[in-house]
Amino acid sequence: MKLRDTLDIDEKGRLRIGGCDCVALAEQYGTPLYVMDETHIRNMCRGYIRLLQEKYPNATVAYASKAFSTLAIYEIVRQEGLGADVVSGCELYTALKAGMPADKIYFHGNNKSPAELALAVREGVHAVVVDSLYEIDVLNVIAGKAGAVQNVLVRVNPGIDAHTHRFIQTTRPDSKFGFSIADGTAQEVICGLSEKKNLRFAGLHCHIGSQIFELKPFALAVDKMTDFMERLFVTCGLTVEELNLGGGYGVTYTDEDKPLAPWQYVDAIVEQLTACLQKKKIAPPKLVLEPGRSIVGEAGITLYTVGAVKEIKGLKKYIAVDGGMFENPRYALYQSKYDAAIADRANQPPAETVTVAGKCCESGDILIEDIRLPSVRSGDVLAVFTTGAYNYSMASNYNRNAVPPVVLVQNGESDYIVKPQSYEDIVARDAIPARLGERK
Amino acid sequence: MKLRDTLDIDEKGRLRIGGCDCVALAEQYGTPLYVMDETHIRNMCRGYIRLLQEKYPNATVAYASKAFSTLAIYEIVRQEGLGADVVSGCELYTALKAGMPADKIYFHGNNKSPAELALAVREGVHAVVVDSLYEIDVLNVIAGKAGAVQNVLVRVNPGIDAHTHRFIQTTRPDSKFGFSIADGTAQEVICGLSEKKNLRFAGLHCHIGSQIFELKPFALAVDKMTDFMERLFVTCGLTVEELNLGGGYGVTYTDEDKPLAPWQYVDAIVEQLTACLQKKKIAPPKLVLEPGRSIVGEAGITLYTVGAVKEIKGLKKYIAVDGGMFENPRYALYQSKYDAAIADRANQPPAETVTVAGKCCESGDILIEDIRLPSVRSGDVLAVFTTGAYNYSMASNYNRNAVPPVVLVQNGESDYIVKPQSYEDIVARDAIPARLGERK
Repeated sequence: MKLRDTLDIDEKGRLRIGGCDCVALAEQYGTPLYVMDETHIRNMCRGYIRLLQEKYPNATVAYASKAFSTLAIYEIVRQEGLGADVVSGCELYTALKAGMPADKIYFHGNNKSPAELALAVREGVHAVVVDSLYEIDVLNVIAGKAGAVQNVLVRVNPGIDAHTHRFIQTTRPDSKFGFSIADGTAQEVICGLSEKKNLRFAGLHCHIGSQIFELKPFALAVDKMTDFMERLFVTCGLTVEELNLGGGYGVTYTDEDKPLAPWQYVDAIVEQLTACLQKKKIAPPKLVLEPGRSIVGEAGITLYTVGAVKEIKGLKKYIAVDGGMFENPRYALYQSKYDAAIADRANQPPAETVTVAGKCCESGDILIEDIRLPSVRSGDVLAVFTTGAYNYSMASNYNRNAVPPVVLVQNGESDYIVKPQSYEDIVARDAIPARLGERK
Repeated sequence: MKLRDTLDIDEKGRLRIGGCDCVALAEQYGTPLYVMDETHIRNMCRGYIRLLQEKYPNATVAYASKAFSTLAIYEIVRQEGLGADVVSGCELYTALKAGMPADKIYFHGNNKSPAELALAVREGVHAVVVDSLYEIDVLNVIAGKAGAVQNVLVRVNPGIDAHTHRFIQTTRPDSKFGFSIADGTAQEVICGLSEKKNLRFAGLHCHIGSQIFELKPFALAVDKMTDFMERLFVTCGLTVEELNLGGGYGVTYTDEDKPLAPWQYVDAIVEQLTACLQKKKIAPPKLVLEPGRSIVGEAGITLYTVGAVKEIKGLKKYIAVDGGMFENPRYALYQSKYDAAIADRANQPPAETVTVAGKCCESGDILIEDIRLPSVRSGDVLAVFTTGAYNYSMASNYNRNAVPPVVLVQNGESDYIVKPQSYEDIVARDAIPARLGERK
């Protein structure tokens, strides 16, 4: 396991992140605990910005905040010059509350509610990325009532063959997202936009999938999208001001993953785009990229305390931790793989194969199946890596377990960016109707 | 789809639950909305109690509250004479706050924390169901410090062959739960309990799985457990006062499911138990059963508003609703199937096949794949059935969507039992450390 940025192992074999000893963090804040490395987050942001400044300055990087959406993350990415991609009213609310300028926000989603669209128009988001005819109609009415003309990008499905590239699931022809380019729907919808007096066509959006490790699918997407831009100009006289290509750049969960540095994907995208624009004689659009997982994924680790250690003779050894599918449902959902270390002896060679189980009352509540670790004891602090994306954001109160807090670390300092949830918090919205009490 | 209890369709074809019109509920409370039928919950409780009073009065029914844990449900099941099975400190906290007597509470889980165990001892729960040697040691120390002797049940794995009964996953030999009877571990652990001065062995617990539709596995479990009781008496002189057989009785999600009435499972269990006790000359223990899903599952429906309707030419038709995997992750987790109806024309014959998509930014965010419905329009209220168990309890804020409220209905009355979650609630624990602000 290659340790990124400020994750390191000190001379005594103790795991540190942002200069903070992981066992000390577990003691100070309790477990389970999400820890986010500020340095890693900023380095990722700067990598993208630097490459684009050099090679395609007419560009925006919008952080895909569904990966990890809290006040502090919007503050950090804003300081680094990024905008935000939001997918719900509350992500938008949080971004604005953190001071993200509305004109750097893209609002995505296959089924935004009228209330969410009204909030977006009222706050003046840069663009609503429309995804259905129903939404186009509703948004046009809402913008009209607000006396506004709302910029829209149209989400299209470039229909890259899922069989050629099996990791690309989002643009299967039968995806719930986008309008198909192949069957003519996308063009029909975009040309029809001119009749919507309160909407302004500003460009195209596509997103080809997640955890992609190869360059080819991105190049293919650029080729298909520029073909479509050419066709829109020729047949409808339409210019695409903005080309938003989404994200999908892979990160390392285990040593099986061999991603490139995120900006290498962007480098390849920019090269292909520049070539296609020249060849197809298209005026260069503003390029928008939306990395999420690649900014926060490897920045995060989760600290647990090991409780029960249970060996089933001849079959399996479990170590049970104080977390589980309520704070990381990705194994249960996708059979995702993770790497881990024992925090106070991270330099020791593996001595046994164990399965890391959560504490939920469900057989499928596993975090890591069959991982090699040094001999594990009850009371050990276990650190699981690459939990910065889609862990806190997917956390639930399943089994009425509390959502763990999140701590941000840098240069030996640590601070809550999400505070702990108490039993009182969990029960706060519960009510017993008076008529039930009367039956006592 | 057979409609249970107070679910019915009025003469105009409108779906009602507890005498409340579903479209009116959607208008009054907004969508998505969980609705729970009080009559169904009470009828299920009474079915169990009545059968046991008649056939095996020395019995307790403990509601397995992980299926749906809120103040109001503990109040209802307590009124009906049930106890509670809890699996976390906060489930215990909620049950106690609702007035559930501690001596009717069973505390389960494969990895309870020391803080949770201390709470259980302090509050005097009837039994802690121990699941590891580590827990036995920790609990003994905690009880000692409190000057208490804590009743324990020991969770055992009867090792029913998962290949014979593939639906039974929980007692696979390599399950994280329980001590194996087959390899001698269970007996060793139970005999060793006599050395723990602050623990008192009160009996055995097993739970063979979920959504079981056949009687045979339950009969098999009773046979294995009574064999083990006999062996414990013969080899260690131990009497099992309580036999807790968990739950697992199947409910109807779609017409493919053909469950028996829950009490038919219990009837079969009681018959087999009575026969085994006689044959093996065992003093009859107190019988404990822990139904969860069968009490609340079919009591619940979820109401949605249909937004985008999107037809992908020749491939698929999506109807997108304002919910999704954040409020029902069971399709994403288990490919679970559900039935649904359009609330204002529930009596119309199906006219098309559609896929019900959620609003989360994720391709896998589907609620129902390929369901036959009358022609669906944007704005329709869609009711999905059998969402009372493991929907609210597994809900998250994924994509920063709010957890929907829960309304309890009976005799035309409706009341919140879980109030709505606001954007402010979702962001309430977020913090921006001062050092971040200083960098502005």
